[in-house]
Amino acid sequence: MKQGRLFVISGPSGAGKGTICKALIESGAADLSVSMTTRKPRGIEQEGIHYYFVSHEDFQKAIDEGNMLEWAEIYGNRYGTPKKPVLEKLARGHDVILEIEMQGAMQVKESYPKSVLIFVLPPSISELRKRLIARGTETPEQIDLRTRTTLDEIKRIKDYSYFIVNDDLSSAVEDARIIMSAEHLRVEDQAEEIINRYESEVE
Amino acid sequence: MKQGRLFVISGPSGAGKGTICKALIESGAADLSVSMTTRKPRGIEQEGIHYYFVSHEDFQKAIDEGNMLEWAEIYGNRYGTPKKPVLEKLARGHDVILEIEMQGAMQVKESYPKSVLIFVLPPSISELRKRLIARGTETPEQIDLRTRTTLDEIKRIKDYSYFIVNDDLSSAVEDARIIMSAEHLRVEDQAEEIINRYESEVE
Repeated sequence: MKQGRLFVISGPSGAGKGTICKALIESGAADLSVSMTTRKPRGIEQEGIHYYFVSHEDFQKAIDEGNMLEWAEIYGNRYGTPKKPVLEKLARGHDVILEIEMQGAMQVKESYPKSVLIFVLPPSISELRKRLIARGTETPEQIDLRTRTTLDEIKRIKDYSYFIVNDDLSSAVEDARIIMSAEHLRVEDQAEEIINRYESEVE
Repeated sequence: MKQGRLFVISGPSGAGKGTICKALIESGAADLSVSMTTRKPRGIEQEGIHYYFVSHEDFQKAIDEGNMLEWAEIYGNRYGTPKKPVLEKLARGHDVILEIEMQGAMQVKESYPKSVLIFVLPPSISELRKRLIARGTETPEQIDLRTRTTLDEIKRIKDYSYFIVNDDLSSAVEDARIIMSAEHLRVEDQAEEIINRYESEVE
């Protein structure tokens, strides 16, 4: 059976990777992975849908047993991607999308080398600044710092296989779909399976 | 300026690579490369459109000077792809498609390592046999031999980056277009150019 592929969508914050992922998931192009966290559920959040809610002990156990694709600690709580549900989806032939920060993306590349890393770029630095100002959550000084950080982050594009410039959302989503389709047409680890298919017909 | 890419469409004969290429060229997805040959023009064939017609001496000179992407001798005449017109098209930002036999494909990979090799597969061996029988140019014995050769050729798919199963022409052409679009979204040798673009904006 056709194996699904794991796509990691990452890039500087503010480039719009979340919006692209949301559109891809909603269109049915791929399954979203559910994160695991040690923080308590809020409001309508449901176990297994918004997060897997676990204790600090269970989270640590998952790390120790190599069951996390990536994880990070933010303000004393841990967040990460458990390996098992992702591998199960891939085995069922579903593509899976992970939307994560750049450090997490590097962890996934290490823990699952067959993952395909996609870098989402803002159309320009000035456009990124505009978006951050519109968002209104940061001071001008923070935005200046962010601009410089973004440039440093863009230099790490070399660790990624593909890039998408998020100028117009619908063409960015279309680019993501093209990348996902093309990856299924790559020979790489499918070579043996292809050869066997034709050989079995003749024997 | 955006650089074009060289796509090599190859695979076992009878898989339909010619039809796929024709459709891609006609839709304007890419430029066709014009072959060079030592044989004489036939009928309406025009210089620079159907072939570049040259003498044996000039063909040998092109080989000696490293100006051929690939070439082969068939029944005493030489056929091949001159490098210069292809590189000129790529420099103008046009993608170029080469439809060639598998030996030629390996030569192109060596003479232009940035080329993208696509392997066209028949839907099945039995379907390939049907197509060869319908074509009516070969004896049953020749068709049996061809079937075994095809299997050997399919084993060389590992040398290729992508594969297309030519079951239905329009989806095969669509697959080719997806591959071509995705290749322009690959980071690889575009990384420096991308980084420079964002850096230049801030300086």
